[in-house]
Parts: sequence; C-alpha cells; structure tokens
Amino acid sequence: MSTTTIATIAEEAGVSVPTVSKVLNGRPDVAQATRQRVEQVLEKHQYRRRNTSRSAGSRLVDLVFHELDSAWAVEIIRGVERAAHENGLNVVLSELAGAHRPRQTWLDGVIARRPLGVILVLSDLDPGQRRQLETRNIPFVVVDTAGELPAGVHAVGSANWNGGLVATRHLLELGHRRIGVITGPPDVMCSRQRLDGYRAALDEAAIPVDPTIVRDGRFSAESGYDRGLQLLDTPDRPTAIFAGNDLQAMGLVRAARDRGLSVPGDLSIVGYDDLSVASWTTPRLTTVRQPLVDMAHVATTMLVRLAAGETLTMPRIDLATELVVRESTAPPT
Amino acid sequence: MSTTTIATIAEEAGVSVPTVSKVLNGRPDVAQATRQRVEQVLEKHQYRRRNTSRSAGSRLVDLVFHELDSAWAVEIIRGVERAAHENGLNVVLSELAGAHRPRQTWLDGVIARRPLGVILVLSDLDPGQRRQLETRNIPFVVVDTAGELPAGVHAVGSANWNGGLVATRHLLELGHRRIGVITGPPDVMCSRQRLDGYRAALDEAAIPVDPTIVRDGRFSAESGYDRGLQLLDTPDRPTAIFAGNDLQAMGLVRAARDRGLSVPGDLSIVGYDDLSVASWTTPRLTTVRQPLVDMAHVATTMLVRLAAGETLTMPRIDLATELVVRESTAPPT
Repeated sequence: MSTTTIATIAEEAGVSVPTVSKVLNGRPDVAQATRQRVEQVLEKHQYRRRNTSRSAGSRLVDLVFHELDSAWAVEIIRGVERAAHENGLNVVLSELAGAHRPRQTWLDGVIARRPLGVILVLSDLDPGQRRQLETRNIPFVVVDTAGELPAGVHAVGSANWNGGLVATRHLLELGHRRIGVITGPPDVMCSRQRLDGYRAALDEAAIPVDPTIVRDGRFSAESGYDRGLQLLDTPDRPTAIFAGNDLQAMGLVRAARDRGLSVPGDLSIVGYDDLSVASWTTPRLTTVRQPLVDMAHVATTMLVRLAAGETLTMPRIDLATELVVRESTAPPT
Repeated sequence: MSTTTIATIAEEAGVSVPTVSKVLNGRPDVAQATRQRVEQVLEKHQYRRRNTSRSAGSRLVDLVFHELDSAWAVEIIRGVERAAHENGLNVVLSELAGAHRPRQTWLDGVIARRPLGVILVLSDLDPGQRRQLETRNIPFVVVDTAGELPAGVHAVGSANWNGGLVATRHLLELGHRRIGVITGPPDVMCSRQRLDGYRAALDEAAIPVDPTIVRDGRFSAESGYDRGLQLLDTPDRPTAIFAGNDLQAMGLVRAARDRGLSVPGDLSIVGYDDLSVASWTTPRLTTVRQPLVDMAHVATTMLVRLAAGETLTMPRIDLATELVVRESTAPPT
C-alpha cells in the first residue's frame, strides 16, 4: 500500500487537497484538465485509497453487461444475485449497449458510488480505466472475457476450447466428415477458442479445415438462420454444423427446414450454452453446457475476497464445459 | 407535506433525535422495540421526509423481481435500463426468489441506500412496508401486479383481459369449438385477467366453459408439458389450447408431439408474451404480444416524475396487447 498522502498529490499537481478529494470521489465539479493532471500524479505515485472510510456504496457490486439479451444474461445475473445475497450485497446493473468498453460517464458513476467491486461481462476496461479503479481501490473481475487480458486481471470463464473440441469430436464419432461451423463474433475471445477446439478435433481426425464452411456469426437466432442458409447453399454442403450458441442453433434449424432438410436426418446441429430453452426446441438441441450461473457466482465470490484485501492464488478460473447429447445430432445418411 | 419535525417525533416516542434519524436512515443499530415505536409515531403524524438532503442513493432505482427467470425478465430489465440511462440513473437489481412480498431485510437495505424510487415486478409490498417507504419519501411503481392493488398505488400493466379475449376469438374464428386453457399461477392477477378474457370470448360464441379443460399452470415449459399431457389425455380432448405464456406453449408443443399429435394439424396453440424465441420455435408460435420493454420504460419514467414531486394524472396504465398470428394455429381438421 502506498504511503503517499493526498497532500503530497495536491502539492505536486498544484491544486488544493479538496480538489484531489473531489477527483478521487468522482465528483463532476472539477475541470477536465485539472482532473487529468491529478489522475497522472495519482498514477505516478501509484496512490491507493484506503478502505477505512468506505461509503454506503461498499454494499454494492456493479455488474456490467456488454449487451443484455436473451436468457443467457439471466443466468449470469442469477449467479451474481445469489452470491451477492450470500454476502449481504446489492447488485447495480448496467448495459453498454453492445460496446465492449464502458464510457467514461459510466466509470465516473462507479467512482462516485464506490462499490465493493465491479464485474464485467464480455467487456473490458482500457488501461486508463483500469488504473482509475486501482487508484480508488475498487477491484474488478471479468466474466467470459471479450479480448486478451493483461497479466493481473482477474477473470472467470469456461473451457471454450474444450467445448469446441468435444462438440466436433461428437460429430466425427457419429461419422460426419464434412462439418461446418458458425462462430460467435470474431472479436470475442470465446468464439476464437471454440473455433480452435473445432480445428483441433478435425486435426485429430486428419480432416483438413475447409474455410468455405467456416462462417463468422453473431450470438443470435437471426445470425444462425442467415449463415445457415449460406452454408446449406454451398455446392458440397456440410452434413453437420457446430453453431456458436443455442440461439444460433435455433435459427439454423429453421434454415434447414426452409431448405427442406430434416434435423438430424439431413443435418446434425450442435448448439452451445445449454440455455433452458435448448431442451424444449424441436428437435431438442444437442449442445455444450456452460455453467453460467456458477461462473457468475465464482466471479462474485472472487470480488468479495479481493475487496477484503486477499490475494487470490488462482486469479483466473475456467470452469468445465460438457457435451449434452439430445436429438439434433445423428449419423449422416 | 407534513410540518412535523424530527424533534416532535423524538419527544413523543421518548427517544433522542439521533435515534429517530437512525430509524429514518435504516441504520441497523436501533433495538427492534424502539424502531417499532418510532415507526408508529412517524405513521401517526404522517411524517414525510423532505428531499432536500438526498444522498448518493438518489441516483439509484431499485428494481425488484419476484423471480428472475427466462428472457421475460431480460425484456423488463432492458426497459428499466433504458429509461434509467436517459435519466442518468443506475439500477439496483434484486430477486425475491419466488416470493411475492419482499422481506424486511430487503426493505432495510432500500431505506439505507435511499434510492430515487422502487420498481416492483410481479411483487407487492404489505401495508406496513408501503408506509415505511412513504415515510422516507421513496416512491414506488408496480409492474404487472401480482394481486389487487389498493387505491393510490402506481402501476403499469398490459391489457391482459383483452389478450385472453383476442387469443380465444382467433381460435373461435378458425372454427375451434373445444378450446382448452392453461393459465399462469392463479395467485397472479394477469393469469386471472387472461382467463376471464378467454371466458368472455367463449361467452360471445355461446359456448359454455368446460372446467375439465381449464388447468392452472406455472409460467414454465415444464408446466406446459405437464398440464398439456393432462389436457390431451382427457376423453374429449381440445382441438386448441390457449397457453399461459410462450414457454408453456413450447412445453405444450412437446406434449402434443409425445402424443403423436401435430401442431397445428391436430392441435392449435396460442402462446403469450411474444418473447424473441417465439418466432424461432418449430412451428413458430402464434402468440399475444405484451410490450414488456415499453411497460418497464413507462414505469421507470413514472417513478422519476413521482420522485420529482409530480402528481400523476394517470396513476395506473395498461399498455395494449396484440395478437401475432404465426404457424401454431390453423382450422381444426
């Protein structure tokens, strides 16, 4: 912990002590240039605020979603809610409307309310934002990271590479040789990891990857429908497709139906996530189960320990994924 | 606004002024008996805290769910998030784990953080809890009320009775005469309203309601499956069923399939809500669209106006519902 006082910071930045306090508390009534100068001096001295004078905000956890959509988000929220409840905390929820990095206005709000910590879902902070939280001694944990994380960032994910591997192996074991894939957004880490698992499984079976049946998608039914039609309209169409998530798989089932193909008779489909809806579609989806509630619970528990000043022996945890075989996969005909 | 001072309250309750402040601020360090006495005196004088000294909590809105499940909750959250963002507010999310009334510990937390207001989804406060919020000048709005609301409680819902009416009329117009229904939980107001709409439509067509094909359900696919099998196994099975929501309808599609019945060939099904998943099931669901995002948005905007001291000319608003015809309904064969 730093021994630099606010007075030292104030002197070096050429401002008053109350001004430094205002910046630390995220108060809006400080000129932008002054703020930046104070932030720089705070950073230079690696100033860390002590926890002794925590405000009411310390009973809050900030939960930030890149995007609130589908039952996927509900699973995460439920896991955070449960862990928060166990620790007497309340959850402040924000959505970044599709952006992977929060805006400064959001960060100013966080600094002003001084939560116990921040959980970022499929989103991340830039280095300057990270430093601002560190200066205020507000820890954060990333769930299901979007990009590559620098050393020292705490994160909880799941075994995406392995998920891609077991999904594709399952299709190979059924006898499929021409297996297509629709990924999640390529700028999201888990999409790339699952795709690499797919490649590894094909590699094991000595089948070369055919880039014409690998498509980038988004995590929506619309995307599964659209990319699905593209794949089904290729001259030598795949007999099986590994979808980016369960919603994509539902769109893909529809695409197959619109092309007069039966699932799994003419086309096998594997989803991802195992949302509760996956067992109620027609056909029921074979999918890779991600323990979303558990991931969120573990992340929140990590945050509570970090806020208590603990050093975590495992700063990054990936929970296991597992294949759930239902009705959407069968041997090729 | 009351002119009673904290000093008057303290004197009458036989406690110190700081003790009254502690009770008003939801601080835990006051004996239960003392708290109750102070609450009674506050209530007797209809004390209302003034808004002048709002804490940081006034940038928060509390959003409380009876239960967090399915994409239904995401729609509500999204509407509240949007309206909150427009007003520079943040959302604190809680779940009551299935209970329709919050516990006192939750209310203590609310009182301590003093949010701008509270939004209750499918849940309600008891009279004592309502008074505690009134005393602290914390307004609340109910979304999709569980039970009957007393006068003066602000609420946003949708035209449930009309939804039940148009869903059943649609089936009658297709030529169905034996129409079953699976309701939502009978202790929830919207379930009863939809059922009454169903009855009214049958009444218009001079078809008596047959209680053997009316079943209470829950808002889940499992419930639709289970009740669906019961209805399909009755001697004179219905040719059409109006389901409590889209998830129930998905379970019902499965029940029909397990009995060798095709949808809509042998059985027509109407869902409720129009979740995004409803247009991706097989068959696509005919359903009654509820404007969930809009309902949540309107409720949040009402809360902001109440917190600003406005008196609302429309304390209760029901937004329109509409029938969306897709593939799960057809004339009886």
